[in-house]
Amino acid sequence: MSKTDPGRFFEDFRVGETLTHATPRTVSEADAALYLALTGTRFAVNSADTFAQAIGYRRAPLDDFLAFHIVFGKTVPDVSINAVANLGYAQGIFGVPLYPGDTVTARSQVIGLRENSNRQTGTVYVRSHGANQRGETVVDYVRWVMVRKRDAASPAPPPIVPMLADAVAPDALNMPEGLTLARYDRALAGARHGWGDYARSERIDHVDGTTIEEAEHAMATRLYQNTAKVHFNRHSESKGRFGRRLIYGGHVISLARALSFNGLGNAFRVAALNGGRHVAPCFAGDTLYAWSEVLDKAELAGRSDVGALRLRLVAAKDHPCADFPDRSGDAYHPAVVLDLDYWALMPR
Amino acid sequence: MSKTDPGRFFEDFRVGETLTHATPRTVSEADAALYLALTGTRFAVNSADTFAQAIGYRRAPLDDFLAFHIVFGKTVPDVSINAVANLGYAQGIFGVPLYPGDTVTARSQVIGLRENSNRQTGTVYVRSHGANQRGETVVDYVRWVMVRKRDAASPAPPPIVPMLADAVAPDALNMPEGLTLARYDRALAGARHGWGDYARSERIDHVDGTTIEEAEHAMATRLYQNTAKVHFNRHSESKGRFGRRLIYGGHVISLARALSFNGLGNAFRVAALNGGRHVAPCFAGDTLYAWSEVLDKAELAGRSDVGALRLRLVAAKDHPCADFPDRSGDAYHPAVVLDLDYWALMPR
Amino acid sequence: MSKTDPGRFFEDFRVGETLTHATPRTVSEADAALYLALTGTRFAVNSADTFAQAIGYRRAPLDDFLAFHIVFGKTVPDVSINAVANLGYAQGIFGVPLYPGDTVTARSQVIGLRENSNRQTGTVYVRSHGANQRGETVVDYVRWVMVRKRDAASPAPPPIVPMLADAVAPDALNMPEGLTLARYDRALAGARHGWGDYARSERIDHVDGTTIEEAEHAMATRLYQNTAKVHFNRHSESKGRFGRRLIYGGHVISLARALSFNGLGNAFRVAALNGGRHVAPCFAGDTLYAWSEVLDKAELAGRSDVGALRLRLVAAKDHPCADFPDRSGDAYHPAVVLDLDYWALMPR
Repeated sequence: MSKTDPGRFFEDFRVGETLTHATPRTVSEADAALYLALTGTRFAVNSADTFAQAIGYRRAPLDDFLAFHIVFGKTVPDVSINAVANLGYAQGIFGVPLYPGDTVTARSQVIGLRENSNRQTGTVYVRSHGANQRGETVVDYVRWVMVRKRDAASPAPPPIVPMLADAVAPDALNMPEGLTLARYDRALAGARHGWGDYARSERIDHVDGTTIEEAEHAMATRLYQNTAKVHFNRHSESKGRFGRRLIYGGHVISLARALSFNGLGNAFRVAALNGGRHVAPCFAGDTLYAWSEVLDKAELAGRSDVGALRLRLVAAKDHPCADFPDRSGDAYHPAVVLDLDYWALMPR
Repeated sequence: MSKTDPGRFFEDFRVGETLTHATPRTVSEADAALYLALTGTRFAVNSADTFAQAIGYRRAPLDDFLAFHIVFGKTVPDVSINAVANLGYAQGIFGVPLYPGDTVTARSQVIGLRENSNRQTGTVYVRSHGANQRGETVVDYVRWVMVRKRDAASPAPPPIVPMLADAVAPDALNMPEGLTLARYDRALAGARHGWGDYARSERIDHVDGTTIEEAEHAMATRLYQNTAKVHFNRHSESKGRFGRRLIYGGHVISLARALSFNGLGNAFRVAALNGGRHVAPCFAGDTLYAWSEVLDKAELAGRSDVGALRLRLVAAKDHPCADFPDRSGDAYHPAVVLDLDYWALMPR
Repeated sequence: MSKTDPGRFFEDFRVGETLTHATPRTVSEADAALYLALTGTRFAVNSADTFAQAIGYRRAPLDDFLAFHIVFGKTVPDVSINAVANLGYAQGIFGVPLYPGDTVTARSQVIGLRENSNRQTGTVYVRSHGANQRGETVVDYVRWVMVRKRDAASPAPPPIVPMLADAVAPDALNMPEGLTLARYDRALAGARHGWGDYARSERIDHVDGTTIEEAEHAMATRLYQNTAKVHFNRHSESKGRFGRRLIYGGHVISLARALSFNGLGNAFRVAALNGGRHVAPCFAGDTLYAWSEVLDKAELAGRSDVGALRLRLVAAKDHPCADFPDRSGDAYHPAVVLDLDYWALMPR
């Protein structure tokens, strides 16, 4: 009859059930400013109301990955508080822009379960959905995590593994309603190149590096109300797997995306998250570098002002990316920490 | 004729005088976001306008202890800049909610003075009062501190020690006007248990731990415009009592309260601060854990929707609280850093 | 055909050209709150709408140096990303107050170029101009930096060195429109002394010290979207000139200005930046102290309520300033890190 919530273990999940996540959150300009202070992002759409309004936004929307992290954070107490590993993302689609003043709520549906052969853990697949106060979708994505069992002797559920697309189809990408890029100002955006300037298979070294401090990743992760213990507790983690606190993988995504401004400065909107892998852990003191590869290009139906780039964003630690540290087969260059696959929108 | 303000020493205080504190402060959503980023608090009332409005708040109010710290910070330059120790709190009552856009001002009345037998220091008792721009009380509390004398030879004032209640009486607790908890949503709040589920003497281990970084406590304390030198100056403190900067006790309170969400997630409002003791100092790198004890329960006159819990909140450092580290007589378990006594409101 | 922007080298600048800087920025209360949390500033005008409105501001304006840093940050990618040293400032004039909701844009005109005799570097002089969304000047100043050449063999441009005034003339100082200090409340401001109480050559030790953490200066500098690599990248800087990250000189200015509250608490507005020198680098862990000297006093035409003080603000690290560490000839006391010359407005 404990008052504290131990969170769900593997055997507590049922395929088909919907989890309503706690702690709705009204976002504000302060989230934008803190995100800026913690990541150094420079995309003009998220920085200035005037710039955003010139292309049809009501005002500067919050960064897409900030929206993602806030939704993700809400799922943690119900989905992954007893997780051993965050295994993957798929089919992430960004919906309406998230504006200061909006209130985010989140729910997840369990779409798959598979116990591991060691009987100690199992994989839980959820589709998580973040909405604003009008019920409009802000972001919707699939995640799977390896979760501990409470009791190794618990019976295994029938294995159900969802079919997941490798990537979101271009015709499923959302261009926010009312946007038109005729007045998109590349000089103010700080980047010359548009959609037409990028070629499939092109690689871009983002050059700059940024070092992560303990206080910074902890503040970012608390801002998202993400409660995963490994990010916050030096005392327990000093006896844990890595001997120290682990940086939230989403903070690594945000830092890599901010670094990608230098080379992809007009990629003004993340439209979809096709997949992603946290290849290796990051710790305070690490310096992140990043490079990108253009995986694909797509036109958007009926639009001559904007196109989509499918991008692979690779981050490495303590290793500048002029040599594009990569994977070969199943093995990664030892410096690589992130391999992310997403669609971005860019003016043509 | 120095232009700098050395602050008041013990012999500068007179019983009955009122000190008008400087630096009024307009609070905003940014204070809420920074408080979140620095403490990880998850109480839904302070997190979402929609949740707060559903139970009758105008919008999400700022966290009660955030309001307290802002008022407290204003008193520091006038009351405790030359203090040796913060000895206690009593009779703290929270009034109207503090909303973004409100401007806080503070004043204190000197209500007691007693010189110590060593003639070097004395205890100053003040009643501090924080108000919004309409003059409505936000928080009102008694604090006593040990303050240095400028000159040990100064004559001692007649000793006056105020009578202070052990606890605020339940009928003095304020339920914010217009609130009704019929639409309080425990699923969205992230906690199942209501007032009726808690029993006197029940103890709750809040399980989680959080590590404090130098940058974090300094940012929090500056946000409150608290000027106590011991929190900010590594150079002078390296030669001081502890050899390093001391963490503001209020930040420890806020972290412990945030940890208490896991077990007391529906304690949506701090209604009174009965007392508190900073048992031992905290430093950067310490990891805080916390546990609570239900000291008392009270109904609120005419209300069937809400009740009050008198709670003892104990924080310990680098020591998980499953064993409820406690005091025995006058001595505390060596890990304990905080012993706080407050009233919280909770839906019935 | 790289997509990344290497920034301008010395030979890329032409006298007379205007650079339009990227990343317009809408500021908010969150910038004020973060600036407070990162610097501890206590000037009442920037802290409370009520206080600011009592003397004629529309609401609390953002701190003048915060406005300066935001403009400065925008110039970095175009002006100083390949700089070796920030050599000086002159003729900085603050225009209209910057309010939450305003959008800042910036441009710079190249006003001088002089190659150094080593052929490796040259000095670039720019006049930078920051404006709000109505095109009103927020701040306008001259800066000169030593910038690397891409190729030592590039021909040297004809040397042009602008004539720069030692100080802004008092009649060029802007008192924000509509301000009248009749209702300026010194008790609420937390400082007794007005313009008439200060004498030329008077020196003020600001007493307090504040320690800088890596996370703090990095957050401040990212908040300004300043992209100078030396502040952020431990990995590269560990092999660089200082073996570690360098703190943005503007953060040092802000901390020194915040410390100057104790002694200059009614210097409610920075009206001009006459010049400044970052005498020595600062690093995380350093503790800053500061002292001021009154260089000059000026009346403002037609105003009996307000006067101007020309102040020299000297910051030192790990050295309390009771002995006023200073320059003697060309050499500075080894603790000095900043020597700033500015005009402030103060009630008479």
